[in-house]
Amino acid sequence: MAKELKNLTKRAENYSQWYNELVVKADLAEQSAVRGCMVIKPYGYAIWEKMQHELDRMFKETGVQNAYFPLLIPKSFLSREADHVEGFAKECAVVTHYRLMNDPNGKGVVVDPTARLEEELIIRPTSETIIWNTFRNWINSHRDLPLLCNQWCNVFRWEMRTRLFLRTAEFLWQEGHTAHATREEAEAKAIEMINVYADFAEKFMALPVVKGVKTANERFAGALNTYTIEAMMQDGKALQSGTSHFLGQNFAKAFDVKFVNKENQLDYVWATSWGVSTRLMGALIMTHSDDNGLVLPPKLAPIQVVIVPVYKSADQLAEVDKVVEPIVARLRGMGISVKYDNADNKRPGFKFADYELKGVPVRLVLGARDIEAGTVEVMRRDTLEKHVAQLEGIEEYVKTLLDDIQNNIFTKALNHRESMTCKVDTWEEFKEQIEKGGFILAHWDGTTETEEKIKEETKATIRCIPVDSVEEEGKCIYTGKPSSRRVIFARNY
Amino acid sequence: MAKELKNLTKRAENYSQWYNELVVKADLAEQSAVRGCMVIKPYGYAIWEKMQHELDRMFKETGVQNAYFPLLIPKSFLSREADHVEGFAKECAVVTHYRLMNDPNGKGVVVDPTARLEEELIIRPTSETIIWNTFRNWINSHRDLPLLCNQWCNVFRWEMRTRLFLRTAEFLWQEGHTAHATREEAEAKAIEMINVYADFAEKFMALPVVKGVKTANERFAGALNTYTIEAMMQDGKALQSGTSHFLGQNFAKAFDVKFVNKENQLDYVWATSWGVSTRLMGALIMTHSDDNGLVLPPKLAPIQVVIVPVYKSADQLAEVDKVVEPIVARLRGMGISVKYDNADNKRPGFKFADYELKGVPVRLVLGARDIEAGTVEVMRRDTLEKHVAQLEGIEEYVKTLLDDIQNNIFTKALNHRESMTCKVDTWEEFKEQIEKGGFILAHWDGTTETEEKIKEETKATIRCIPVDSVEEEGKCIYTGKPSSRRVIFARNY
Repeated sequence: MAKELKNLTKRAENYSQWYNELVVKADLAEQSAVRGCMVIKPYGYAIWEKMQHELDRMFKETGVQNAYFPLLIPKSFLSREADHVEGFAKECAVVTHYRLMNDPNGKGVVVDPTARLEEELIIRPTSETIIWNTFRNWINSHRDLPLLCNQWCNVFRWEMRTRLFLRTAEFLWQEGHTAHATREEAEAKAIEMINVYADFAEKFMALPVVKGVKTANERFAGALNTYTIEAMMQDGKALQSGTSHFLGQNFAKAFDVKFVNKENQLDYVWATSWGVSTRLMGALIMTHSDDNGLVLPPKLAPIQVVIVPVYKSADQLAEVDKVVEPIVARLRGMGISVKYDNADNKRPGFKFADYELKGVPVRLVLGARDIEAGTVEVMRRDTLEKHVAQLEGIEEYVKTLLDDIQNNIFTKALNHRESMTCKVDTWEEFKEQIEKGGFILAHWDGTTETEEKIKEETKATIRCIPVDSVEEEGKCIYTGKPSSRRVIFARNY
Repeated sequence: MAKELKNLTKRAENYSQWYNELVVKADLAEQSAVRGCMVIKPYGYAIWEKMQHELDRMFKETGVQNAYFPLLIPKSFLSREADHVEGFAKECAVVTHYRLMNDPNGKGVVVDPTARLEEELIIRPTSETIIWNTFRNWINSHRDLPLLCNQWCNVFRWEMRTRLFLRTAEFLWQEGHTAHATREEAEAKAIEMINVYADFAEKFMALPVVKGVKTANERFAGALNTYTIEAMMQDGKALQSGTSHFLGQNFAKAFDVKFVNKENQLDYVWATSWGVSTRLMGALIMTHSDDNGLVLPPKLAPIQVVIVPVYKSADQLAEVDKVVEPIVARLRGMGISVKYDNADNKRPGFKFADYELKGVPVRLVLGARDIEAGTVEVMRRDTLEKHVAQLEGIEEYVKTLLDDIQNNIFTKALNHRESMTCKVDTWEEFKEQIEKGGFILAHWDGTTETEEKIKEETKATIRCIPVDSVEEEGKCIYTGKPSSRRVIFARNY
């Protein structure tokens, strides 16, 4: 499955094309035969599995349990919550029949017209409706609360313009759904989960994020409040990376989910939902990678260390093999995933380029002369720097280097974001600045009307009202009306 | 979420009803609002996750990598392989539209008639077609082979009669798909994977299985050969628990997947596919459980040990807490999952019944008097036997007991199967014996015609031709024609 390793478009030439090419050339994903649906290839899926593993552990530490709810949702469920149906109806894949038959006029199969469903079913775009319809039977008393469920699954939203990982008709995600006895507890849970997402993004993906609240206009369809983590890509555009919603009692009312509270009175249940998806793969790729290919954070790299032998004869290779074997064993014993690539059908130069493209964080190269000298050549993928290190103690050296790379790419991304974040106080300056990309901290009068006009004129949206924003008197950049805090504007994916 | 613990129908009264009730009462799964689709509840899902975890590890040890392919398949793909479409066309959920709109005549939403797909899409009943259409672009040379992929996903088959876990319209499964350069290698892979399934069933599920080959009539639609593992439930009925298919070059031909072999010639690629599903949950439940509820093999139990305190005062509870805490820590340190249930709102008797129903393998009960005596009451779920053990060294005692339970329920199931397996040589005897349930080893003339007549008259099917069957001259029980080995007949789920 060797791919053309060269000819990756440079970021400076065409960032968008660089991304599209990189996803395919690095064997992460590709378009399928079905419009808007992707195939996630083994190497891409291995990264997604590592993400899942860490997130799942973090969810469980907060008391969340996994469950599974049906793929298909009765059409009528969607209409129960007014904002929700408004938000999703236009992108629903609809199942209308349950049988095919031989084409009476020729070859192949056709839909059997007699097998029409009484009520159409839609493929879940998200599962609030089917889950709250189920929760009605699970919740009677405050003793049944809180109920903390999550599911890992596929969802479907019929998108017109799709891009691998960033926006696809089918995507993989997790959706958490929790039920609570009080408003306060539900709000606290929504915040707890956005904090879990932010921790995961920063500690594992090395992705600095801004935590904030969405404006009414950008809220999830059916939520009273949406928390978000927003990241900045290398081109200065924002990428919404995870959201957590406080749903109030909207879905409980839509599906009649009541409980007997501690005061022995019937009340509607309070809800949250929260999700991250394979879109995180897009964020990961776009944040760290360079013109040579992927750069992966060591904590999510399927292969953390690759060892490539250099040799001129079978004897020399056998000698290298002998030295490498115990190193591999020791690295694995330390929990480091390592690949020793001594395949004879590819030249070292080809291997170097391939593992660079694939973003393997650390490369060790070892030949006969190194063995004599007791040294090894170490290349770190993030900076492409090479060092000669001592063979003795190389395992500890590699371990430290992996930590260093993880920290370095986070710092680099953070510095990049800070260098592309600025405060703007006039409309002229705003229009100029937005063309340069990046986050703009500016005052806004708080109305959806102004928000939409700004979007119309500049394609900039309000990414969020940062949770750590300070109160500050100011005037809306667009209307001049008073404002009490700055919000973040940016163009976005 | 306390359920009615009593009133579980007894197996001897109505085995089928016992199963249906148990699945719901033990909080494993329930019917959803969508016909034939189930909700897998957290406790049931936790068992499935443990199964996934072990299987995934075992697959990866054989070199298999995970990937993800689209949920939806173009209708025309299905027709490419003649047997395949014949097998699945009648149970396909069909997506015909991609948008809803507000009902012009009233409330709610209706399908937007202008958003009709040019070609209908079906929800995957299995993924051979979309995967082989993808493999065409991945495989050029023998160097690209073997290609060993697996995906964990949901699939959909419109079943008319459904039962939780055993037969549902939507179910969760894994489907492995491999591509090989030679017939021999593909056949060996199909056998390797049925061996993985058998190992998993026996070592983790404590489920004895017969490995065998399906008759032509019972083969997977599109396969040249189907290997199966067949288990026997407590009522003597067979349950097909996993299958592995040698697909020959059928799908490579249907999707034009050729490669350059070592002799530098173009040839079609050889294929296998293999899968197990949430149906295994049904096998697990039905094999070991009893009239008091679930019996779980320790290796798959979400909670392996529960500790219940008995006390009369808050002081006494505090004393028990103090003794239990280090025991819990030590058990966890040994990798044993333990729950200390000192919740004050339920009486011990209620807890005992609940954990019995849920199949927790070991229960420890500890009160003030036990602490004084340095003892603890130990109950093992498989036999319901109670022992008084010394508190000192209880962790090792529990560890040994868990192993013992795992072995004991396997042996019990194996003995049950052997006691319900017999050889039969006449048609009269066959008809009599099949009413008693169990596996019948009998001679068959090898024709589909005879197989179907036997099924018509007795509802018995050929479960498999066991791989360890010995050659033996005999006469077909139905036609009297010559036969060279016995096959297994049974009624089945």
